[in-house]
Amino acid sequence: MALIMMRSVETTRRGFFKLKRSSSGIRAFSSLLTSPPSKAVVYDRHGPPDAVTRVIEMEGVEVKEKDVCVKMMAAPINPSDINRIEGVYPVRPPLPAIGGYEGVGEVLSVGSAVKHLSPGDWVIPSPPSSGTWQTYIVKEESVWHKISKDSPIEYAATITVNPLTALRMLQDFVTLNSGDCIVQNGATSIVGQCIIQLARLRGIHSINIIRDRVGSDEAKKMLKRLGADEVFTENQLEVKSIKGLLTNLPEPALGFNCVGGNSASLVLKFLRHGGTMVTYGGMSKKPITISTSSFIFKDLSLRGFWLQKLMNSDEVNECRNLIDHLLCLAREGKLKYEMELVSFDDFHTALDKALGKLGSQPKQVLKF
Amino acid sequence: MALIMMRSVETTRRGFFKLKRSSSGIRAFSSLLTSPPSKAVVYDRHGPPDAVTRVIEMEGVEVKEKDVCVKMMAAPINPSDINRIEGVYPVRPPLPAIGGYEGVGEVLSVGSAVKHLSPGDWVIPSPPSSGTWQTYIVKEESVWHKISKDSPIEYAATITVNPLTALRMLQDFVTLNSGDCIVQNGATSIVGQCIIQLARLRGIHSINIIRDRVGSDEAKKMLKRLGADEVFTENQLEVKSIKGLLTNLPEPALGFNCVGGNSASLVLKFLRHGGTMVTYGGMSKKPITISTSSFIFKDLSLRGFWLQKLMNSDEVNECRNLIDHLLCLAREGKLKYEMELVSFDDFHTALDKALGKLGSQPKQVLKF
Repeated sequence: MALIMMRSVETTRRGFFKLKRSSSGIRAFSSLLTSPPSKAVVYDRHGPPDAVTRVIEMEGVEVKEKDVCVKMMAAPINPSDINRIEGVYPVRPPLPAIGGYEGVGEVLSVGSAVKHLSPGDWVIPSPPSSGTWQTYIVKEESVWHKISKDSPIEYAATITVNPLTALRMLQDFVTLNSGDCIVQNGATSIVGQCIIQLARLRGIHSINIIRDRVGSDEAKKMLKRLGADEVFTENQLEVKSIKGLLTNLPEPALGFNCVGGNSASLVLKFLRHGGTMVTYGGMSKKPITISTSSFIFKDLSLRGFWLQKLMNSDEVNECRNLIDHLLCLAREGKLKYEMELVSFDDFHTALDKALGKLGSQPKQVLKF
Repeated sequence: MALIMMRSVETTRRGFFKLKRSSSGIRAFSSLLTSPPSKAVVYDRHGPPDAVTRVIEMEGVEVKEKDVCVKMMAAPINPSDINRIEGVYPVRPPLPAIGGYEGVGEVLSVGSAVKHLSPGDWVIPSPPSSGTWQTYIVKEESVWHKISKDSPIEYAATITVNPLTALRMLQDFVTLNSGDCIVQNGATSIVGQCIIQLARLRGIHSINIIRDRVGSDEAKKMLKRLGADEVFTENQLEVKSIKGLLTNLPEPALGFNCVGGNSASLVLKFLRHGGTMVTYGGMSKKPITISTSSFIFKDLSLRGFWLQKLMNSDEVNECRNLIDHLLCLAREGKLKYEMELVSFDDFHTALDKALGKLGSQPKQVLKF
């Protein structure tokens, strides 16, 4: 793990440099707030995250009048963070970049024009923005969403990318009522676990598809404890009539796919006439294949969901309300998923776990 | 071609039989209207249309008070008619059945409770219904849509299944304005030709994909004469950047697919971010394959269109207005496509042509 001094990446990106600032003797330095030096995970090029990331020390940056300096408390390593570092994500921050996209922190200081945040407040970046894997972040007030301080930090740090995806996908595509049913693959993912619980809270049943693997019986039990009505492995669904497996559940009008390939075809098979499948991931790296007749005679619709697009739209305020709602559910124990809090000092071990190099692991959440 | 006498299929399906009627001496026969004997194409079982269809003579049937007896003038052989006979169509009339689904005829007689139709009127079945390949049809007034008598009969006979599909697909999925652009494969089909012309009338550009085959240069010229902006063969689109081929056209928000396989993928490649592809056919018999990222990052939507579902909905009256509009365009020469009128006596030759046994042929329209 390389630990070196470097000019602040954040400062570089803003286009003003230490050299320039220190050569300007006119400004009254006493009126300038500066963030503490920060420790950050940076990468200068795209590639395997364990090869291209380094932990560095960065100088403090100016906290301008509309800025808020946040001392980070926790930030997860999400698959999309890994994809950004690999360079396979369609939207990437310019290089060099600091890793991480969501997290939670405490306000350390605020610029003179900041109105709604004060030191001591807990905030999460909303919309999520790059650079959460560092000890201090300076960003404009508009980026930060103040949250209740009684939230468990590991949930506050992870509430946006996965649980909000689950919540919005349940409400954005099909009107569901109590007694209705959804179907999903990749059900053991955190989004999948959230879908089960959020659906259950609304009286919506769930049919869940998981991989055949060692431990699938335990996975089934875990999902049923969360409220899943049915859990099938893909092999169990190699039957002539998939719907014959459902006796007490209505045909689902909505399905979620984060796998692709055959697993997506299984979701499509469960859907009722006129149903919709929403794709939000592609874990198998295989495309989705669908017959002509599924469109013409079964009237299926295929759509996609991407949280980043939503959070950069004019719906960000509504999303903040939903985040508060989700945090409330987490506090009440109505929304849960397994995580492992690891010290930021152990970043590369956590990264290895997130990359799957040490077997199946719970979501890694860095604690600063 | 077998020509035999048989109890009326239509009568059998209604559940009253010649035997029963003639044994009832109580009814005043003078008050009963009866249709003339009819010649019809029937099939008793599903299979290859040239093997399972027969032309038969049928006795006249009772024209009840709400019924209208129509002397058919023309009816096409559509691919969906062939699929119905083959038994591969998801909705099939009960057997034995009379072939054909759309057409045009002249009212011969009406029941006593019929209000809006009189002998001599021209009518088309709307919604299209089975049994148009016969010389006389008796159906309830509600089935028949009166049209202007100055329509060319070959257009009146074919205006519903293909042109109405084109018109509805252009308006049902995406709001298009003058200057916008659509993309389609299978562009030489009659639906494809109609899409080009109907789009052009609204100032909408079209990008058209056709197969590589003998005569593709002529096909290109034909489509350009109809108003196509661009026509590519599939091989021409085997380039790195498909959109580099378009210099003066906007990226299309709407695409139409009636082929599947690679040809559907080409339509998807042309679509702009957030675009929609509507599938209405699958000529290649290959499924549609689409990447996960097309859904998540390009926000594409995949939908289907089936005219039969639409015509059986509460939109049938709006469809009738659109049929009138389309017939008006056909009369004015603004909507055209090649057809071959053939005598009903030559049904089996026409069927062979429609089945492709005699090479590429224009749409076969039976003339009674």
